[in-house]
Amino acid sequence: MATIRLYMAMSLDGFVCGPDDRPGQELGQGGGRLFNWLDERDGEGIDGQVYGEAMATSAVIAGRRTFELAGRWGGDHHDGVPIHILTHDPEDDAGNVHWHTSPAACASAARADAGDGAVVMVHGAAAAQALLRAGEVDEIEVHLVPVLLTAGRRLFEGIGPDRFDLEPVRRLQGHDALHLRYAVRGTSPLA
Amino acid sequence: MATIRLYMAMSLDGFVCGPDDRPGQELGQGGGRLFNWLDERDGEGIDGQVYGEAMATSAVIAGRRTFELAGRWGGDHHDGVPIHILTHDPEDDAGNVHWHTSPAACASAARADAGDGAVVMVHGAAAAQALLRAGEVDEIEVHLVPVLLTAGRRLFEGIGPDRFDLEPVRRLQGHDALHLRYAVRGTSPLA
Repeated sequence: MATIRLYMAMSLDGFVCGPDDRPGQELGQGGGRLFNWLDERDGEGIDGQVYGEAMATSAVIAGRRTFELAGRWGGDHHDGVPIHILTHDPEDDAGNVHWHTSPAACASAARADAGDGAVVMVHGAAAAQALLRAGEVDEIEVHLVPVLLTAGRRLFEGIGPDRFDLEPVRRLQGHDALHLRYAVRGTSPLA
Repeated sequence: MATIRLYMAMSLDGFVCGPDDRPGQELGQGGGRLFNWLDERDGEGIDGQVYGEAMATSAVIAGRRTFELAGRWGGDHHDGVPIHILTHDPEDDAGNVHWHTSPAACASAARADAGDGAVVMVHGAAAAQALLRAGEVDEIEVHLVPVLLTAGRRLFEGIGPDRFDLEPVRRLQGHDALHLRYAVRGTSPLA
């Protein structure tokens, strides 16, 4: 089965963009700070490695908001891989873009597209939260950025009530971000 | 001048305790998960080193809530060092416990107690937030725990509107927690 892996840059205080993210200010106010590490994405170092891995994934899942703010990636996130959009307001499938209202169905279709042993990238906070709640996130790769953004959109919100038990599986210090990968080992009641 | 360093265990989603922290359930529901690393505090390894450093600090700052939930540490946090409590509702100073309503005055008194080259430990989310807003936190040591707690009290909240620029200065993987130390390099407008 394919692995579903969340890829997101996050400030130490948990934000994935600044406040007021909208068309024309896609990363929110000051949110660009979270993406300095991408300056090194084409280099030989750690950041290049991590970016290369993300761009070697075999399918993409995102929420509609992320998809639209990204200009629908001009129709191609990378290498023409299938793009699965999780939304309450789907369109008809067209080309490599598929629409879903059910997190489980979305995960299942993306896994099938990617194939055994491949990785599906999840991008965007809303899709991440919906898939976590559905128990469909296998791994989390956070690019932890040394900044307290103080405001914006949080990556992990509304995913309770059970805790998610994580196992650290890799830790790589890049130029700016610390790339932390965790395997999701399941959930446990808080009580 | 003494260094003011925040020491806190934090889940990957930013919580320092579970929901409903109160007398009788001091760490909140499920919050004990954040302190598994303390099982190794007396060992020879990384966790023992980090715990030892915390217990070698020369003064402590906390908010009243933390102080009370901790049973006032039985009057001695460690080695009889001065304890400075930041609160809107101070008592009269008594023994090694000093009360402050101003974050700046609290920081100044704790620094004076600790002395040049020493470290003042800050503990508790409210004191951390008040001191961050006052520009009085020099370093942040987060014991990052591989769990998504999903609810509780957040370490970094209400500290805007400017972002805090951090510089990673140390990274140590303990038995459970990843001990991340940052120097606070100042603030910058988000815009």
